[in-house]
Amino acid sequence: MSSNVNRQWLFAERPEGKLGVEHFGYRESAVPTPGPGQVLVRHRVLQLMPGNRSWMQRDTYRSPLETDQVMPGYAIGEVVASNDLSFKPGDVVETMLGWQDYALASAAALKRRDTPASMEDLMGLLGLSGLTAYFGLLHVGRPRAGETLLVSAAAGGIGSVVAQLGRISGCRVVGIAGGPEKCAWLLNEVGLDAVVDYKAGDLADALSAACPNGVDLYFDNVGGRILEAALDVLKFGGRIVCCGATAHYDSDTPSRGPLGLPLKLIVKSLTMHGFANYGYGAHEREAESNLLKWLSDGSLKTFYHIVEGLEKTPEALVGMMAGMNRGMLLVRV
Amino acid sequence: MSSNVNRQWLFAERPEGKLGVEHFGYRESAVPTPGPGQVLVRHRVLQLMPGNRSWMQRDTYRSPLETDQVMPGYAIGEVVASNDLSFKPGDVVETMLGWQDYALASAAALKRRDTPASMEDLMGLLGLSGLTAYFGLLHVGRPRAGETLLVSAAAGGIGSVVAQLGRISGCRVVGIAGGPEKCAWLLNEVGLDAVVDYKAGDLADALSAACPNGVDLYFDNVGGRILEAALDVLKFGGRIVCCGATAHYDSDTPSRGPLGLPLKLIVKSLTMHGFANYGYGAHEREAESNLLKWLSDGSLKTFYHIVEGLEKTPEALVGMMAGMNRGMLLVRV
Repeated sequence: MSSNVNRQWLFAERPEGKLGVEHFGYRESAVPTPGPGQVLVRHRVLQLMPGNRSWMQRDTYRSPLETDQVMPGYAIGEVVASNDLSFKPGDVVETMLGWQDYALASAAALKRRDTPASMEDLMGLLGLSGLTAYFGLLHVGRPRAGETLLVSAAAGGIGSVVAQLGRISGCRVVGIAGGPEKCAWLLNEVGLDAVVDYKAGDLADALSAACPNGVDLYFDNVGGRILEAALDVLKFGGRIVCCGATAHYDSDTPSRGPLGLPLKLIVKSLTMHGFANYGYGAHEREAESNLLKWLSDGSLKTFYHIVEGLEKTPEALVGMMAGMNRGMLLVRV
Repeated sequence: MSSNVNRQWLFAERPEGKLGVEHFGYRESAVPTPGPGQVLVRHRVLQLMPGNRSWMQRDTYRSPLETDQVMPGYAIGEVVASNDLSFKPGDVVETMLGWQDYALASAAALKRRDTPASMEDLMGLLGLSGLTAYFGLLHVGRPRAGETLLVSAAAGGIGSVVAQLGRISGCRVVGIAGGPEKCAWLLNEVGLDAVVDYKAGDLADALSAACPNGVDLYFDNVGGRILEAALDVLKFGGRIVCCGATAHYDSDTPSRGPLGLPLKLIVKSLTMHGFANYGYGAHEREAESNLLKWLSDGSLKTFYHIVEGLEKTPEALVGMMAGMNRGMLLVRV
């Protein structure tokens, strides 16, 4: 591709049901020139996550998307031209400007990423999913050694880090995932203590068998019937970190709420923490430092599913919503 | 009534829908004689609360009731005969032995109540409802001066204390109640800052109008659609204390869960604390001392709806579930 073409994926249409590639549009435009105070960034790695899908649906974390806007999303890349004194060509920066080769940003909207690490690690383990796992589990869930930690979507980008951070914290870690392959991978590669395949057999029975002494801390990435089932294996005084609700994202039908709430919270004195990774900026250096330490001493592994080429981004997100990938999903632009 | 007759109200039948007096049975038996290690208690004041109704339904706080067992419930009275060295006639004690004139208890199952206060205050403000309000609001919800506190079932036994403790904590207190009379009473007698009548007009609009700057802390006694509506007026980072779910008690139909959970918790980083008043025994003296101090200095008032006569107990509970009373419902046996 010529370097004076900017490939862009657009939000074309709000899905009525499951996401498909037809809900995206494609456009090639000229690489823009930065105006006063603007910075031109060449995107190198994108991260895809279920949140991208939820933005296409309704007003959740952010305002609804407008037709033909560039699909937003986290991206990392380098500055190629700058009309702002705070950035110079070659600086590594993070943007929210999504699915395109080049993005024009105001300097104030860019986040400098000067930690010495690969673009993949900056967008993956040290990106939103890794930090969400770190803050959600360690700052909000506060696992203690000897506790049982249950994690849903354990094979996902956030779940696979949460599970490992739980092990580092001294917990017995039980994961929930769909299908025998993901479950075997979680046991053998990620190193969980037990796994529950939510697609096989009775979920309540399987959870009870995998957590014979109950669950102290449940890290929920999915909501829906898995959250309902987890409520029944939590111990008195147990905690839930609600980090995601993927069961509710890929549909235009409003979900019913979790059955038995709030009574099940009351009778077992459970606490449910809704968690979105806002307001932890002051702790990001701490998180990066710890994550890199655990990575270097081998107690933490990264699992990246890397898609080569911006052109494959829509099908990659569709595949993620269908449960195709393990670990974090990154696109090399 | 002769003192050698023990009047007893029994659980007769699990209600299919709303509670009625026909779901209770009545029996007169002889006043029992304490065996070794047993204590005979003359009940003087019972407390009725929505929990009594929930026990008749399913397995919630306790095992399901058996047909023809005496209706359980909190009661206060004095020891009339004792075969245990730790209790003597005249001692004031609390039992869970419910709707009867006399109860035979093992000494281990009795709670001594030696705080100098009336039987009504020991069962009301210093009883389960008052302590639930105290610990649920002050230990779990942790209101701070300047915050907006929203309380549902604000005219109820727990809610009317929570609202006052919120005012003592320096909060702006907004109550939710049903009907103009209760709302006027909350404003004029209990001293709330604003009130929302959930039976009048659009609940969401009324909540927004009463809480123009949003809600920091929501104390929920009801669950159901009022909990759903409250989620929308909570501020980012807001807290919910789930203390009761009366909207779910008076029915045999399993309720759907609150719509929008868990996503609404996530996007606003809300925390939902299920609270049952267990495990606070070590703090009861602190609670009694503070409640009595606020009572004596006029910053807290007691509101008792007192029913005279054990014979009226079933109709009093039916009336409570229909929203008939204000403040705490006590029965003088």
